Amino acid sequence: MITSNSNPKIKYIRRLLADRRFRHRERAFVVEGTRWLKELAQFKITPTLVIVTQSYMLQDHVLTLFNMPPEIEPTMVSEQVMAFASDTVSPAGVMAIVPMLSLPIPAKPSFLLVLDNISNPGNLGTMLRTAAAAKTDAVLLAPGCVDAYNPKVLRGSMGAHLRLPIEEMSWDKVETLTTNMAIWIASVGDGVDYVEVDWKKDVAIIVGGEAFGVGHQARSLATGNVSIPLHRDTESLNAAVAAGILIFEAVRQRRVVDGA
Amino acid sequence: MITSNSNPKIKYIRRLLADRRFRHRERAFVVEGTRWLKELAQFKITPTLVIVTQSYMLQDHVLTLFNMPPEIEPTMVSEQVMAFASDTVSPAGVMAIVPMLSLPIPAKPSFLLVLDNISNPGNLGTMLRTAAAAKTDAVLLAPGCVDAYNPKVLRGSMGAHLRLPIEEMSWDKVETLTTNMAIWIASVGDGVDYVEVDWKKDVAIIVGGEAFGVGHQARSLATGNVSIPLHRDTESLNAAVAAGILIFEAVRQRRVVDGA
Repeated sequence: MITSNSNPKIKYIRRLLADRRFRHRERAFVVEGTRWLKELAQFKITPTLVIVTQSYMLQDHVLTLFNMPPEIEPTMVSEQVMAFASDTVSPAGVMAIVPMLSLPIPAKPSFLLVLDNISNPGNLGTMLRTAAAAKTDAVLLAPGCVDAYNPKVLRGSMGAHLRLPIEEMSWDKVETLTTNMAIWIASVGDGVDYVEVDWKKDVAIIVGGEAFGVGHQARSLATGNVSIPLHRDTESLNAAVAAGILIFEAVRQRRVVDGA
Repeated sequence: MITSNSNPKIKYIRRLLADRRFRHRERAFVVEGTRWLKELAQFKITPTLVIVTQSYMLQDHVLTLFNMPPEIEPTMVSEQVMAFASDTVSPAGVMAIVPMLSLPIPAKPSFLLVLDNISNPGNLGTMLRTAAAAKTDAVLLAPGCVDAYNPKVLRGSMGAHLRLPIEEMSWDKVETLTTNMAIWIASVGDGVDYVEVDWKKDVAIIVGGEAFGVGHQARSLATGNVSIPLHRDTESLNAAVAAGILIFEAVRQRRVVDGA
């Protein structure tokens, strides 16, 4: 059992949690909690390390770990070490180091979400979760977004990282990937009514951060702005909610075409 | 200038932030930041107390305060006192005590959001913001929800409390208010496809918490369950996003009827 905070494995976890560049250099990220462990088992993804507390193992949760590949032997750690390693105030009792996947973006995508200047990790995690549920082909992260492997993003994304390509890239690459697509910027109040847009075309939705919206690169690329008409007194919706409404209006129109 | 954390005004703010029952006994709540101050000015609601720091006053923000009614004279506090009073890690530099409004719920509501067991204050705040933007008639909080005046709820709600009635009530009262309405429970996977529902009727949407969903009172009241079809591998959407998608599908159908 690991009982020291200065154990190299624990220090490695802490650095992966804290250091964006280190995560990407190591091509690894840290997840926490039973829900994430189940997601890994569902997608048959083998963590490189699992740490657990004794009290976690003594709960029913142990069943989750038994569904893991046999080569995964969880490393026991003391409660105090788990509290030190964990990114949360109330540690779930289980954490894992997971290799980053490199899911390929389709060469001719039909439905993309492009994020610009999303600095709120909770909003980013929620948008990734929505994009996975809507089966978008990929999420493209333009420069200026919080890291997709930030622990707060991972708490909200509910396994989206295992389901669809999520890739940081330059605006040049965004432009290349969205060639021949209609590109709509989610905008507050000054765009085409979102229910009037033809979402059945190959389409990309660009969503900006709540504070500053999208930058000039997004605007130079876009077909136009799209807005959700709101009650007059109201300024805006939460960015993740607005993204969800736009994405599922696109899904609704596309389902009708598919006859589903 | 207030320079002591034990000043009675500061202690009163701290207690309002921390103590749900005290807030409701005093019929007062605490908001923070320029955005909320602007909302108060827009709705001509007079805070009972405004505290600011000198550095806040020296920024352009002072203009916001000048738009306040003349009887509001902000109380200066030291940076250290603001840090103590504030509920946030990075205080905005302005806080206000606001009297609770008692906006009346229409006798015959046409569009209601009913929340059951919503324990996540961020989600509750976001749902209130969405309900205000969609112009629902009211939000009914069934027993088991986090307090609508919790500081974390107020950070997400963006002034929803000034725009629509938000009321905690018993299930008996929910039942009385929703008489003759269609009542749909937002559900994961086992309900009627949400685009097939006739949202043009008088309708209430019940949304439960992410952890445990709705309780038996909600189920005994409901017309049925409604679901958003998701990509097969995905378990669910964030509760606030799902609520947003349902609410704005209702708005979409109702707009068509109105000819708007």
